[in-house]
Amino acid sequence: MKSYEKEQIHRMMQALQQAGYGKGTTSPNPPVGAVLYHGDEIIGAGYHEKAGEDHAEIRALEDARKRGNGELIKGAELYVTLEPCSSYGKTPPCTDSIIASGIKKVIYAVVDPNPRHRGHADEVLRAAGIQVQGGIGKEACEAFLRPWMHSMATGRPWVIAKVASTLDGRIMRSKGRRSISGDEAKVFVHNLRAESDALLVGGRTARIDDPALTVRYASRFLSPRKEQPWRIVMTHSRDSLPEDLKIFTDEYAYRTIVYENVLDIGGMLEELYKERGVVQLMLECGGNLLRQFIMAGCINEWIQIIAPIISGGNEYVLPGEYLDSEQRIISPEIIHCGNDCVIRGLVHSSHS
Amino acid sequence: MKSYEKEQIHRMMQALQQAGYGKGTTSPNPPVGAVLYHGDEIIGAGYHEKAGEDHAEIRALEDARKRGNGELIKGAELYVTLEPCSSYGKTPPCTDSIIASGIKKVIYAVVDPNPRHRGHADEVLRAAGIQVQGGIGKEACEAFLRPWMHSMATGRPWVIAKVASTLDGRIMRSKGRRSISGDEAKVFVHNLRAESDALLVGGRTARIDDPALTVRYASRFLSPRKEQPWRIVMTHSRDSLPEDLKIFTDEYAYRTIVYENVLDIGGMLEELYKERGVVQLMLECGGNLLRQFIMAGCINEWIQIIAPIISGGNEYVLPGEYLDSEQRIISPEIIHCGNDCVIRGLVHSSHS
Repeated sequence: MKSYEKEQIHRMMQALQQAGYGKGTTSPNPPVGAVLYHGDEIIGAGYHEKAGEDHAEIRALEDARKRGNGELIKGAELYVTLEPCSSYGKTPPCTDSIIASGIKKVIYAVVDPNPRHRGHADEVLRAAGIQVQGGIGKEACEAFLRPWMHSMATGRPWVIAKVASTLDGRIMRSKGRRSISGDEAKVFVHNLRAESDALLVGGRTARIDDPALTVRYASRFLSPRKEQPWRIVMTHSRDSLPEDLKIFTDEYAYRTIVYENVLDIGGMLEELYKERGVVQLMLECGGNLLRQFIMAGCINEWIQIIAPIISGGNEYVLPGEYLDSEQRIISPEIIHCGNDCVIRGLVHSSHS
Repeated sequence: MKSYEKEQIHRMMQALQQAGYGKGTTSPNPPVGAVLYHGDEIIGAGYHEKAGEDHAEIRALEDARKRGNGELIKGAELYVTLEPCSSYGKTPPCTDSIIASGIKKVIYAVVDPNPRHRGHADEVLRAAGIQVQGGIGKEACEAFLRPWMHSMATGRPWVIAKVASTLDGRIMRSKGRRSISGDEAKVFVHNLRAESDALLVGGRTARIDDPALTVRYASRFLSPRKEQPWRIVMTHSRDSLPEDLKIFTDEYAYRTIVYENVLDIGGMLEELYKERGVVQLMLECGGNLLRQFIMAGCINEWIQIIAPIISGGNEYVLPGEYLDSEQRIISPEIIHCGNDCVIRGLVHSSHS
């Protein structure tokens, strides 16, 4: 029985791997993955790729049919990372297709927080004689779905502060010395970009660094459907930004959005979610803007890449006085990344 | 043959473990360890504990005799981390005792850099019919002996910069919040103190923090012979330091040394080595003094404990402009220490 549970978790992690392929293209929908098992064999697998298109469950069924496993679907078990939808959205309810397919049992990890679906699948499927089991691999799948869950609950994107620093807390090296982080960290950052819907910098970073803010060196699976992330620039005045910046002149110029004189960061975040479907926003800004986001209480996750360098200089991770609310990563993950060290985790505020 | 070499390295690591017990009490002598093997059995082990007292080889022989293994010394093999001394110092040459003991073979890791001994042991021992093999476990033993080798070569202590910081490069949290690092890191730091001969702070740290600068929470083996490290305060004027500071009033007040108005850090280091036998000096100072040590090119090793906190504030790991010589840790070691992350390694300077 214990080992059966382990096997179930193993299968759910395979569904989660599928889900990973969709991360970065599904927003505002969740990235979801599914695998179909007949006995001990995978007969099909799939993931949701883009809002308005087939959900993971449907893609797994299609995959099984394409592989010549159509006969084996009857009696199969479906592992899916999120409770199947049970109502009409842009596509018909997955529960209908599941029932029609003859699947014997549905195992899912996370209950859909959407009140339109929450817990409904169990009823609908059971009424059709299908066994249902929830909660398998829940912790890992919830962690994976956290940005989407957050945006569902708050109407704002999940905000990641990405910082590349020296040991002495600087984010820029002296002239003539380029990047702080090593090549491995560069790939790491581009993987984060690939799963983000938007990247954000301030006007100053845009002017000084003239960054491309595109996904170029990612090592993770990149869907051909992946668009470059939105590039958000927060600045006092649009006119302060030279017209020949890369973000205005490259082929993705249509993905650049300038926000002028933002007084309400929360309002801007709501707009990005509502109007652009941004579920995950990664800050790649300097210390001053980072401080504004911290003071607005808008940072959910902190990812800092620390290079083994002591440089001095005037560009700080975070300039200025003590924060009113110290930020703390409760259970930081520490990742060795070439010669650099990545410290990441969820941010908690505590007032002093 | 291959597996015999592995076995030899294993035995040398046992000798190195012995050497570790002496680290922190032997200066200006090196911490050295030895084990005696008869066939596949350890018959004695020992380490050098204090300058002027028996060397590791002699202690291992004594240990064997005390354990009733005296008969087995004849024909035994001696593993020792440093080439045995072959001349009269404060004690007679170890080679004499080795020859008298009937030991069959001497295996050592590191050649003594002291010109009085370098390579002499081989000759002397071979002339007496004893087999000699050098270089086994050399890399690990050299790394362990690095501070002593440095002080032998330069006449100065090995200088470790120890920094406890937040992610944003601050070394002090806002009022009412105490230590930056967690309890595991505290033990880690006290272990470093236990193996250091002296700790150094600036007048400002002494005044603001009133630190005890003693070994209190170490988890490593502490010899009963271990004295508290020297406590060095560098300040503009002795009069700026209140008389009631812990370092002036506790039972180790005699271990506190104040340096006023130091213009030549190198000169001070030479004095500490020559007059106090300081082989390993750990800086526990603030950013301004740290900057002076960096600018003087006097830091050999960097150990930074990074807590997963973003705090802001005016106390920086390193304040001020770009360094003329950026400091870099070439192959940093990354250690998980509770919720904190330790990054440590040897420091290299590179001019911009």
